Amino acid sequence: MEYRFSDRIASLQPSAIREILKATSNPEVIPLAAGNPAPDAFPVAEVREIAADIFANRPIDALQYGVTEGYLPLRNRIAEYMKAKHNIGRDFDSIIITSGAQQVMDLSTKVLCNEGDVVIAETPSFIGSLNCFRSYNVRLRGVDVEADGMNVEKLETVLKEEPKARFIYTIPNFQNPSGATMSFEKRRKLYDLACKYDVIIIEDNPYGDLRVAGEHIPAIKSLDEEGRVIYAGSFSKILAPGIRVGYTIAPSQLIAKMTVGKQTSDVHTTIFSQLLVDAWMEGYDFEAHIEKIRGIYRRKLNLMCDCIDSDLGSFCSYVRPQGGLFIWCDLPENVDMLDFCKKAVENKVAVVPGTAFMVEPTDKTNAIRLNFSTPGDDQIVKGLKILGELSKQYK
Amino acid sequence: MEYRFSDRIASLQPSAIREILKATSNPEVIPLAAGNPAPDAFPVAEVREIAADIFANRPIDALQYGVTEGYLPLRNRIAEYMKAKHNIGRDFDSIIITSGAQQVMDLSTKVLCNEGDVVIAETPSFIGSLNCFRSYNVRLRGVDVEADGMNVEKLETVLKEEPKARFIYTIPNFQNPSGATMSFEKRRKLYDLACKYDVIIIEDNPYGDLRVAGEHIPAIKSLDEEGRVIYAGSFSKILAPGIRVGYTIAPSQLIAKMTVGKQTSDVHTTIFSQLLVDAWMEGYDFEAHIEKIRGIYRRKLNLMCDCIDSDLGSFCSYVRPQGGLFIWCDLPENVDMLDFCKKAVENKVAVVPGTAFMVEPTDKTNAIRLNFSTPGDDQIVKGLKILGELSKQYK
Repeated sequence: MEYRFSDRIASLQPSAIREILKATSNPEVIPLAAGNPAPDAFPVAEVREIAADIFANRPIDALQYGVTEGYLPLRNRIAEYMKAKHNIGRDFDSIIITSGAQQVMDLSTKVLCNEGDVVIAETPSFIGSLNCFRSYNVRLRGVDVEADGMNVEKLETVLKEEPKARFIYTIPNFQNPSGATMSFEKRRKLYDLACKYDVIIIEDNPYGDLRVAGEHIPAIKSLDEEGRVIYAGSFSKILAPGIRVGYTIAPSQLIAKMTVGKQTSDVHTTIFSQLLVDAWMEGYDFEAHIEKIRGIYRRKLNLMCDCIDSDLGSFCSYVRPQGGLFIWCDLPENVDMLDFCKKAVENKVAVVPGTAFMVEPTDKTNAIRLNFSTPGDDQIVKGLKILGELSKQYK
Repeated sequence: MEYRFSDRIASLQPSAIREILKATSNPEVIPLAAGNPAPDAFPVAEVREIAADIFANRPIDALQYGVTEGYLPLRNRIAEYMKAKHNIGRDFDSIIITSGAQQVMDLSTKVLCNEGDVVIAETPSFIGSLNCFRSYNVRLRGVDVEADGMNVEKLETVLKEEPKARFIYTIPNFQNPSGATMSFEKRRKLYDLACKYDVIIIEDNPYGDLRVAGEHIPAIKSLDEEGRVIYAGSFSKILAPGIRVGYTIAPSQLIAKMTVGKQTSDVHTTIFSQLLVDAWMEGYDFEAHIEKIRGIYRRKLNLMCDCIDSDLGSFCSYVRPQGGLFIWCDLPENVDMLDFCKKAVENKVAVVPGTAFMVEPTDKTNAIRLNFSTPGDDQIVKGLKILGELSKQYK
């Protein structure tokens, strides 16, 4: 038979990254394209202990249906931790556990946007979130990211132009893919603009704990006295992504609707994963584990920057990120960036063309995204050597 | 601030069952409302062994990101098993792992339906699926379920009336909530009508392995030579629901779009859960386990039917199901069914009013749904005694 698809899905293509990642399943290809945590960043011994304990002492808890909102002790534990450590959460807020932070984007769009509404996002931004928004037939507007985060003057212009804007999506810390971190002044300004133009903010913070330099900057959600920020957190980068545990702290009225939405999406998040996170936060020094991860990523980030400087030199300009997993490298105007990415894969180094992350169809970029968490140190060195050799073809 | 919700979610209420289930979190309330597997139906010792092996020998596999389509060995294993055992799957089909079968409904609707399209479902039907369809702003049309399944004459009438019908949703085996099983003749007729009117069929089969009486009837998908059946399977009832592992076997073109949709929903299903199912199917006699579960449910179903017969007698009429988890009890016309359900909870027995499962706003029922898998045997006996006493108030 001939298949007809919904309008929302017909135009949505598999992400360019996923296509490139298929090349990286070839172990000969050096993976600078993915965003996987480093394998040595997983707390394997602790997970082993906790899993043994769960299946020895409370297997039924891990196997039976759970409630859609998530495992209550874990919800309480995260809420208390985020309040104490980051001043996130007010009396009007509540929390649900989600199947990764990706699901926060999905449920937020589901409950907030009609088709044809407008979502404002940093350009470039995380393609998984952008495609999620697109899958609800919303129209995306992009606001450029500067070294200190979203261009807030441009943001106000867009807010004035778009009365159907429903929310602003931002990754304030070590943004994917730009690596930029939003200054406190801009966070305050962004929040004030959201209040002035009566829109919601989705603050996506998967990398916040991965700071390797500079000073911590308070979350936008910590400023939220009006109840207009949906905060998305994740255990993917500090514990493990395969367990699919994220959460959102947001006004209770929104959480109630997101819970109804989640009930129809996947009923609840895997219970074993939730028990695992809860036991890890309760019984182990997870702050020490995060410090350890920071050390790993500090070393890898510095190594990659050194290699870029020595092997690519003036061929590429970048702003050194203060954390996260990615470095955003602008290539010279005269270089055909897509051709460079294609040749890189042919030379067995996978990188992501920056165009994958652009918000509006007319957005242009000549940048590529490099990831330093997935490759081993030797792969970083070798990969940049290959890219350096390749760059000579464009001079 | 004042929140505005999308049209799709504004009218969607938390399910009546979930509200009733809140009462059942009180351990004094006898749970005849839920649909949880019996705790003694979980293969706890096997899961314990497998988990220990996974975290001892391949922890990184369980913790790292996976591909959206699902763990390849598991996909291959299920596809081969379903082909060999049930003749499900053709060359044009493929398979993805989903976060429970619920996600099959979500992704199918996402890729097939525009807002305003029509979905046809058995009435009564599973509220989780109905609410999922509703969350895409489709219009639902109901077709009544008879003792041998969907009324196929009525189905053809609806298909004639609704040119925007995109798919027919059916639970052919031990339907939730009616308990009815569709005859082979009706399966064939349903498939022929789908071909004639060029619509898709979603065959949801969570309970198929839980047959306790009568002869196996081939799946609709086994008849599918045109590629118009989306088959939804689940490990929730035969292994455990807390792990959230379902799957769909469907034409590859649909699967490709569903994969793009899943990427934006939750990236991938929990990897540990997928490794667990794969190891269980590979290394253990899971068919023997399913036989054991059938024995448990046969005993519980028979016990509940005996109790209904002796305690409720002519107060309730029902068709004895050949499997599944539910018994659908019609109350006399003069009884206020909602009042009966309310009084039942007050008397510490939770049951679900049949109205929760109706498809169209004008659909009427005077039935209640009883579940026999969640309560212990003593709770079944005691619960029906209480309902029997309560019924005397209505005579």
